[in-house]
Amino acid sequence: MIQKTMDLSLGKVKIKIGNKTLMEDPVFFAGPCSVENLDTMRKIACDLKEMGVDVLRGGAFKPRTSPYAFQGLKDEGLEILSIIKKEFDMVISTEILDLRDIEKAADIVDIIQIGSRNMYNYVLLEEVGKLGKPVILKRGFSATVNEWINAAEYILNIGNDQVILCERGIRTFETTTRNTLDLNSVAYLDRNCRLPVIVDPSHGTGVRELVKPMALAGIMAGADGLLIETHVDPDSACSDSQQTINMDTLREIMKNTSEIWRLT
Amino acid sequence: MIQKTMDLSLGKVKIKIGNKTLMEDPVFFAGPCSVENLDTMRKIACDLKEMGVDVLRGGAFKPRTSPYAFQGLKDEGLEILSIIKKEFDMVISTEILDLRDIEKAADIVDIIQIGSRNMYNYVLLEEVGKLGKPVILKRGFSATVNEWINAAEYILNIGNDQVILCERGIRTFETTTRNTLDLNSVAYLDRNCRLPVIVDPSHGTGVRELVKPMALAGIMAGADGLLIETHVDPDSACSDSQQTINMDTLREIMKNTSEIWRLT
Amino acid sequence: MIQKTMDLSLGKVKIKIGNKTLMEDPVFFAGPCSVENLDTMRKIACDLKEMGVDVLRGGAFKPRTSPYAFQGLKDEGLEILSIIKKEFDMVISTEILDLRDIEKAADIVDIIQIGSRNMYNYVLLEEVGKLGKPVILKRGFSATVNEWINAAEYILNIGNDQVILCERGIRTFETTTRNTLDLNSVAYLDRNCRLPVIVDPSHGTGVRELVKPMALAGIMAGADGLLIETHVDPDSACSDSQQTINMDTLREIMKNTSEIWRLT
Amino acid sequence: MIQKTMDLSLGKVKIKIGNKTLMEDPVFFAGPCSVENLDTMRKIACDLKEMGVDVLRGGAFKPRTSPYAFQGLKDEGLEILSIIKKEFDMVISTEILDLRDIEKAADIVDIIQIGSRNMYNYVLLEEVGKLGKPVILKRGFSATVNEWINAAEYILNIGNDQVILCERGIRTFETTTRNTLDLNSVAYLDRNCRLPVIVDPSHGTGVRELVKPMALAGIMAGADGLLIETHVDPDSACSDSQQTINMDTLREIMKNTSEIWRLT
Repeated sequence: MIQKTMDLSLGKVKIKIGNKTLMEDPVFFAGPCSVENLDTMRKIACDLKEMGVDVLRGGAFKPRTSPYAFQGLKDEGLEILSIIKKEFDMVISTEILDLRDIEKAADIVDIIQIGSRNMYNYVLLEEVGKLGKPVILKRGFSATVNEWINAAEYILNIGNDQVILCERGIRTFETTTRNTLDLNSVAYLDRNCRLPVIVDPSHGTGVRELVKPMALAGIMAGADGLLIETHVDPDSACSDSQQTINMDTLREIMKNTSEIWRLT
Repeated sequence: MIQKTMDLSLGKVKIKIGNKTLMEDPVFFAGPCSVENLDTMRKIACDLKEMGVDVLRGGAFKPRTSPYAFQGLKDEGLEILSIIKKEFDMVISTEILDLRDIEKAADIVDIIQIGSRNMYNYVLLEEVGKLGKPVILKRGFSATVNEWINAAEYILNIGNDQVILCERGIRTFETTTRNTLDLNSVAYLDRNCRLPVIVDPSHGTGVRELVKPMALAGIMAGADGLLIETHVDPDSACSDSQQTINMDTLREIMKNTSEIWRLT
Repeated sequence: MIQKTMDLSLGKVKIKIGNKTLMEDPVFFAGPCSVENLDTMRKIACDLKEMGVDVLRGGAFKPRTSPYAFQGLKDEGLEILSIIKKEFDMVISTEILDLRDIEKAADIVDIIQIGSRNMYNYVLLEEVGKLGKPVILKRGFSATVNEWINAAEYILNIGNDQVILCERGIRTFETTTRNTLDLNSVAYLDRNCRLPVIVDPSHGTGVRELVKPMALAGIMAGADGLLIETHVDPDSACSDSQQTINMDTLREIMKNTSEIWRLT
Repeated sequence: MIQKTMDLSLGKVKIKIGNKTLMEDPVFFAGPCSVENLDTMRKIACDLKEMGVDVLRGGAFKPRTSPYAFQGLKDEGLEILSIIKKEFDMVISTEILDLRDIEKAADIVDIIQIGSRNMYNYVLLEEVGKLGKPVILKRGFSATVNEWINAAEYILNIGNDQVILCERGIRTFETTTRNTLDLNSVAYLDRNCRLPVIVDPSHGTGVRELVKPMALAGIMAGADGLLIETHVDPDSACSDSQQTINMDTLREIMKNTSEIWRLT
């Protein structure tokens, strides 16, 4: 048997998202933590579309520490995303947790997200990868960069190289912030890996007022895009409220990103 | 909707393994990291049976950091376990990674293991739990004790309370050992949780010569049993060789455990 | 210049504490976190002496996170230790933080403690080492084993090999316990380092009810002694109350230690 | 006794460094890890002066893990700094480790640095603080933000509020980079603490090619200045060579910083 090995020096992977190409243009993924109801999603989609956000994201299936916590609207959430997709003609991204949900998601979702808890779930990675659609692979919150790249290789190995790495903070001893956003990893990947990398400053900080500075810091570190939890009324968001920003803040981040983009 | 909550103060869960009851007798889980071939498994099973080991464990499906590393014998491994089970009449434990393997494993495996990488894979936990068989739930290598107990609750919540917690070391800054075996967690669970807890000093240290002292330390901390990677010829083991002990060392650990058991 | 290097394979260092020799007999260091007043120290010393504790320890100088927290009785604390030493003829140990306190402590203190926060304070290590008395070198709470051994080398290098390593827990992501007691390090040092190593389960857990099991686990891992915060009335202790045990618990630990000692 | 408490809401502390005021202008601290010899320091100082670097830094006393490693030129290093200061009329900063060196450093050094290993060395903090000069307080590599602010309070409490916090990376499980630069802490302090905060991307990454992107990321996160190991010939630097940049890279960082400064 010939032992295949990773070759990080291969050409940069080009992934086209809507009108932009990751690594060439800054790409924005925004939306609520959870899909809540059709009405709220309409308001959010309307604003994001108008602002020029590239991808609408929202969770239908929510992995939660406790089995007794809200687990997402599940199939109903997918249906809401389906309606929004048609009404607003937006690129849609959502997280998949269960092999058995892949098929039904395939018709609705343009970009599949693998969450931080599932980065080591290689079975799921392979099955999701087989769809041939772009996959956002969030870093496991305690994964080394080496493990993260190897997890991506599980998808590449089945013939899908549309992998978008997403730094979302790691678990450390620090408790002032929810996680420690590791922008070193972004700067490292930008120079040593052929896959695009985006930053999620919402989970990376867990604190609303830190989202903007850390989003921009992420861009300067070398990120190709940003994934940000955004809501028309953050205080009412049914999950991750304390780290969700409003539309005005997202607008500022997008404006500032365009100003610093040429420097990176 | 009535919000169910965890109640750790409920009565201790009695799990019978072979001739013993966890929390009352020290229970031993031993065997190789990977199922390698029928011949080697026969030699190992023969020795372990003679020594009075309660459960034979061996990996058929191996989750590996790289997709290009040995992934276990898979179905062939299960078949070998099936033959061994009949020939030696032993209790068998193995890890399951994929929802689609549960059914075929059900006929052969007495105790399902959920590995450290899959502790947050709640979908797998629920489906495995539905078998109604005992489940070894290894602690995620970066999971807090609170997250670990909550993961167990995903199994308890579907009506299966045969959950055995297994401390196997956590990821820290220290690199002298592969992981940092957190025996504080064992002492804590022994006093605050109704589920039995066992210790895996093989992964917990990653160093062969440290397995014996840390196994015994685990017992004094309050462990109800030990899960130890054991091989007739550790140096030839095809995975985790450097942390696998031989039969003589296991014999000493079992002897010493019986000597200190009444003190705990 | 000839580059001196560490040689961990040199003969085991024999340190005599009272009537015992570390590495041959289990040695007990006990007493309150802080020296509080003469009366309380008399009661504690009386009990410990009667129980056969080898070393009375108590803090006169307390390094605290906040400058506005109680910093110890300082010189008055040293004086109390001096009186106790004469009245009870006990071996005394206390922590030194400031180069300028070394001289005055030299007349009273038999064993100098370097606290976890000062493990990297090489200037202090060298100056304390020059006294030629035994030094308890607590592991920095985020120090690797390699850094810890190297810190000891700063003392050995000036000609004092009376160094007692003390594992007291490391800082990790886990918050159920105050620190994560790293007994792997104890098992490792027992086999690879010529210095004795003791365990502090009080700081190592931060939880009173976990002190006994983790003390005994420490002995099984290979510790040569135990350092335990003990008080006649733990609830009234003016610092570290929640991790301080009473005299009865210490008595049980000493009894159990003698029962398991020959197995290690 | 009246219990004094921290009040982070007090007015922002203004610290004037050369011609700039921290928090208003970006301030640059640059120079070699160690003072090596007069000739090399002259070349470095000449270049830095010409580029407009505000503070020349260089280590005379080097705390090293092993007592057998190069410990800096010590007094000779101070003397070289003294000559350079006069010749180039630059603001000088160096680290002090030993209480007994404070007095002699006082005549030469304008800004005293407390290194990461000494953040908990409160005795040193207080004595250095008494000089009334600005103090760079590097974050302990495993210190929480709360402990770091409290350490600063030891200096503020003796009447010196000229404290400059310096984020230099924390110790985590990740090994791709030397430390994990925690820019979350910078964004947090920028909004919640009245002291200026600077970033050290040299120690924060440990990798030369990551210094520039992380320096700029630090500025976007909210840093008031940068401390960067710089050398005329990085490959020949006698310590920290692999994380030291050359003059051209520093020039680019300074140029880019001025371009993004108004956005922060």
